[in-house]
Amino acid sequence: MKLEDIQSPEFVKDLTITELELLAKDIRTFILHNVSKTGGHLSSNLGSVELIIALHYVFNSPIDKFIFDVGHQVYTHKILTGRAKDFDKLRKKDGLAAFLKYTESEHDVWEAGHSSTSISALAGFLEAKASGVNIGEVIAIIGDGAIQNGLAFEGLNYLGNNKQKGIVIINDNDMSISKNVGRLSRSLSKIRIRKSYEWMKKITPTFVQRLFRSAKNAVRGVVYGSNVFANLGYKYYGPIDGHNIRELIKYFQFAKRTRTSVILHVKTVKGKGYQFAEGDINGKWHGVSPFDIVTGKSINTSSPNNVNWGKGICELLVDFVSQNNKIYVITPAMISGSSLQLLQEKFPKNLIDVGINEEHAVVMAAAMSRNGLIPIVSIYSTFLQRSYDEVSHDVARNNNHVIFLIDRAGINGGDGSTHQGIFDVAFLSHLPNMVITTPKDLSEAKNLLKMAIEYDGPFVIRYPKKNVVRKEYLLEDIQLGSWVEELPIQDLNIITYGDEVDIYKDKLKNVGLINARFIKPIDINMLKKLANKQVIIVEEVVRNGSLGSLINDANIKSDLNLKIKHYAIDDIYLDTGTIEELKVELGIDVDSIISNL
Amino acid sequence: MKLEDIQSPEFVKDLTITELELLAKDIRTFILHNVSKTGGHLSSNLGSVELIIALHYVFNSPIDKFIFDVGHQVYTHKILTGRAKDFDKLRKKDGLAAFLKYTESEHDVWEAGHSSTSISALAGFLEAKASGVNIGEVIAIIGDGAIQNGLAFEGLNYLGNNKQKGIVIINDNDMSISKNVGRLSRSLSKIRIRKSYEWMKKITPTFVQRLFRSAKNAVRGVVYGSNVFANLGYKYYGPIDGHNIRELIKYFQFAKRTRTSVILHVKTVKGKGYQFAEGDINGKWHGVSPFDIVTGKSINTSSPNNVNWGKGICELLVDFVSQNNKIYVITPAMISGSSLQLLQEKFPKNLIDVGINEEHAVVMAAAMSRNGLIPIVSIYSTFLQRSYDEVSHDVARNNNHVIFLIDRAGINGGDGSTHQGIFDVAFLSHLPNMVITTPKDLSEAKNLLKMAIEYDGPFVIRYPKKNVVRKEYLLEDIQLGSWVEELPIQDLNIITYGDEVDIYKDKLKNVGLINARFIKPIDINMLKKLANKQVIIVEEVVRNGSLGSLINDANIKSDLNLKIKHYAIDDIYLDTGTIEELKVELGIDVDSIISNL
Repeated sequence: MKLEDIQSPEFVKDLTITELELLAKDIRTFILHNVSKTGGHLSSNLGSVELIIALHYVFNSPIDKFIFDVGHQVYTHKILTGRAKDFDKLRKKDGLAAFLKYTESEHDVWEAGHSSTSISALAGFLEAKASGVNIGEVIAIIGDGAIQNGLAFEGLNYLGNNKQKGIVIINDNDMSISKNVGRLSRSLSKIRIRKSYEWMKKITPTFVQRLFRSAKNAVRGVVYGSNVFANLGYKYYGPIDGHNIRELIKYFQFAKRTRTSVILHVKTVKGKGYQFAEGDINGKWHGVSPFDIVTGKSINTSSPNNVNWGKGICELLVDFVSQNNKIYVITPAMISGSSLQLLQEKFPKNLIDVGINEEHAVVMAAAMSRNGLIPIVSIYSTFLQRSYDEVSHDVARNNNHVIFLIDRAGINGGDGSTHQGIFDVAFLSHLPNMVITTPKDLSEAKNLLKMAIEYDGPFVIRYPKKNVVRKEYLLEDIQLGSWVEELPIQDLNIITYGDEVDIYKDKLKNVGLINARFIKPIDINMLKKLANKQVIIVEEVVRNGSLGSLINDANIKSDLNLKIKHYAIDDIYLDTGTIEELKVELGIDVDSIISNL
Repeated sequence: MKLEDIQSPEFVKDLTITELELLAKDIRTFILHNVSKTGGHLSSNLGSVELIIALHYVFNSPIDKFIFDVGHQVYTHKILTGRAKDFDKLRKKDGLAAFLKYTESEHDVWEAGHSSTSISALAGFLEAKASGVNIGEVIAIIGDGAIQNGLAFEGLNYLGNNKQKGIVIINDNDMSISKNVGRLSRSLSKIRIRKSYEWMKKITPTFVQRLFRSAKNAVRGVVYGSNVFANLGYKYYGPIDGHNIRELIKYFQFAKRTRTSVILHVKTVKGKGYQFAEGDINGKWHGVSPFDIVTGKSINTSSPNNVNWGKGICELLVDFVSQNNKIYVITPAMISGSSLQLLQEKFPKNLIDVGINEEHAVVMAAAMSRNGLIPIVSIYSTFLQRSYDEVSHDVARNNNHVIFLIDRAGINGGDGSTHQGIFDVAFLSHLPNMVITTPKDLSEAKNLLKMAIEYDGPFVIRYPKKNVVRKEYLLEDIQLGSWVEELPIQDLNIITYGDEVDIYKDKLKNVGLINARFIKPIDINMLKKLANKQVIIVEEVVRNGSLGSLINDANIKSDLNLKIKHYAIDDIYLDTGTIEELKVELGIDVDSIISNL
């Protein structure tokens, strides 16, 4: 059978172990070849092939519910549930989603692009089951990085105290997205290598279960061990070899039969079966763009001066840190994602990777700033949402000097609705004391970063998931809240910010152009110069709470009589597509704007 | 010495144990008498008297840093650092703050009104210390409720993997705010009662330390035990009798000398020394209004039909749950805070207290709604900030049917800047699919709640920290997004929402009045009726992202030519004061608005 012909996961139940192993091999090859062409999440998907095959072998989806955390690891699930044929459109507009998606399959019962929701979701499914909803077994599958997030702990804390049974599978590749950092990961490692491991591998779950029934306490010490999960009230089994289908099936069958909540600790190898990905400790192979399978090299051809924004920003950071060792950059597991490798190499002490702990990152930064350090939180726009409360309560409320470098601000593309960076302006602009900026190029970024370091309060610098051209840096002292009249003010004017400013500059004729590099505070003097004129505001963020809202307010308050037209994103979650495709669809791409002037 | 004469905590170092015990007695009496007059946080402050005296005896604040989590427990610290004389103005405008406050004392080195930030803050202080900042010992003092929040876990996870030494004191009264619920709390209880306790009490820390040095592993089993903290990499000691000053001092001295991070588990009695508070399991004595010490009865006199909004809403909930058992109310440790006792009494199965786990509450609700239940998250406005990401990613993004009852929306009063509910409209209104409402009275609340239960998507009902009059409920089917013309539209009109609508209605003459009970979606037909007229929008939330922003947008988009004046809160964190005092100061109270018409 070709993978593309699979309709339902039922067929795996009739296969022998040897056939399942062959299936795993086929799927791994399929994933590698497809991702090498389309790009996507590679390492975690190569690591979870046998795990997911064994899940579908033992459990009956969709009556039994697989709750995949994040969904970096779900390609095998997609393949087994009839979606192999769609992999050529993976992460493309109207194509196969990066993560799970309710509308794609009845087997996708939980959607998540942000980490660590699976155990709380599991608890919610169990509440429904307890109230009579027809639900079989509920199984959360969560990575060793995601389980270290506070939300996952809250889920464990709740479920461990609950009478209802849930199954939690920790897919532990010891790597999270990149090398794991938290203490819990060290605890997992200890478990991983403990002496009972070899012995554990040999006992069958049935035997364990019998032992458990007959001599509860005697087994407890051996099977549970002393670990954080046992202490939170779970039966704990592991480590289990995540590439041994026979062993996985036995443990899953045991988990199905047991009556109280259980944690199965499955050890997998990230990037399993592909040499380059297996050796990766920096997360380079976590999410990839198209690459050559033989050489492992990216197919993207870009000129040496054309780098992604993250890398450009990192080079600036290296420069500033070399001059001031009070600067600390804090990243939540995104050294590779935000291209901070150069900083890691040059100033490892000034780069703190806190793992997928966005809330902790911001509070720690606040405390550092109260003691004279200059903390810089480098974070994706969409993940900063997790720290909204801390940005307000711990940073902005006391006007603490914490800098936020917001990566992937604006429309993002392939990862779909969970990853669009279109809310940050709205959730930050209403917080008192915040300064919010978006540079148009790396030169402006450098000047803004210099200003942010010297400023005494919270300061945000946003940049997109795009490439940018390295160029000579023009040093300039920027005035707080100052906009730039890029093209002289006319009767008709465009106000925008970010990397499209220079594109407009090239294309506009007889139209004024304002670079609103400060979203907050706004440049009221520039607005006064625009009084009584037509103003077109263009943003790729949600409308309410955007720069446009701030300008509307100023327009009323200062009686400026601006004739405003405001292009922004109207009250929808944007799905997958390239940045340009989505902008065209929304009518906020440069050409649409200009043709509608 | 009178407590009011204390200038600095230095003096405690010269006292004998007997004198310290007398001091504790005096402080306890002082707190009880003062809080009975001013209101405030009672139980946790009565419980932490000896703990804080011992801290100041052993450590040298402010070089040694006390990081109090939340600050429900800090009155003794305030008294010992020279602020007893200010207790008559506790929680009053320009008076003594409810929690710690940087501007009040150099001994207040961390400000927090939201729980569970202390361990991450501790980590930040240690980073500063490691980089050369002159900091002595750093001690986080955190309650057994707060330590179960995900953020605290993230802090523990980080610090446990760190080489720097921090001291974490768990102030465990087994109660959190009300009866503790999470699994971790059960683990703490187990530790509390384990057999080694009696023996532990007798060994002195010096002896423990010697043992530790000479026979590391031998001691580990006894002293650490097997618990979640030991498994996260901490030396763990406890339980320690939190009302025995001599014992506390010994353990604190030991913690000061030891070189690696340590957790001291201190057992205290919430409400210690005051009979009514000691017996309280519902959190009634957590935060109190003025009361009679002898009878324990609240001094507030209100008519039987005058209840707080929370209680009024709870009565509606009881009514709806009695008709539909698919409705579940989820509260993060606020059964007492949000007055849900009646629901707890009548339908205990339909009320889920998840502890201080706001993120978990929202994700679990999302999963319940995906399976046909009707989850209602009852939560304070300010604490919903912690769940901003989950409200977006897990609820609004998929248009899941989760209802949010937002308690204490708007200005709050005594708790100060951390507790004002003035951001919710701004952080919710830009999320697609959200319906946001504020009823003017309980009758409208009932109709909106009925609608929310029947609606298929996220639905918010906001209500203030105020009293409301019970009255007959007029059943009415409300149209989504419909406003009410309370007074006929004129040339000049007020648009507002919430419980002041009827106050305006009584006072206005020749002015139109619109009840904008739906903040989102707005009533565009009503706005069209207002075209070309003067419109005064009044809100007690932050300006950007408010109803006013949405009306501004509509005004431009639909070319309505409204002449708008918008009263809202401008870009500041509001400090302590009564609701009315703060509104007068901001110029947004009814009388100021009317006199400025």
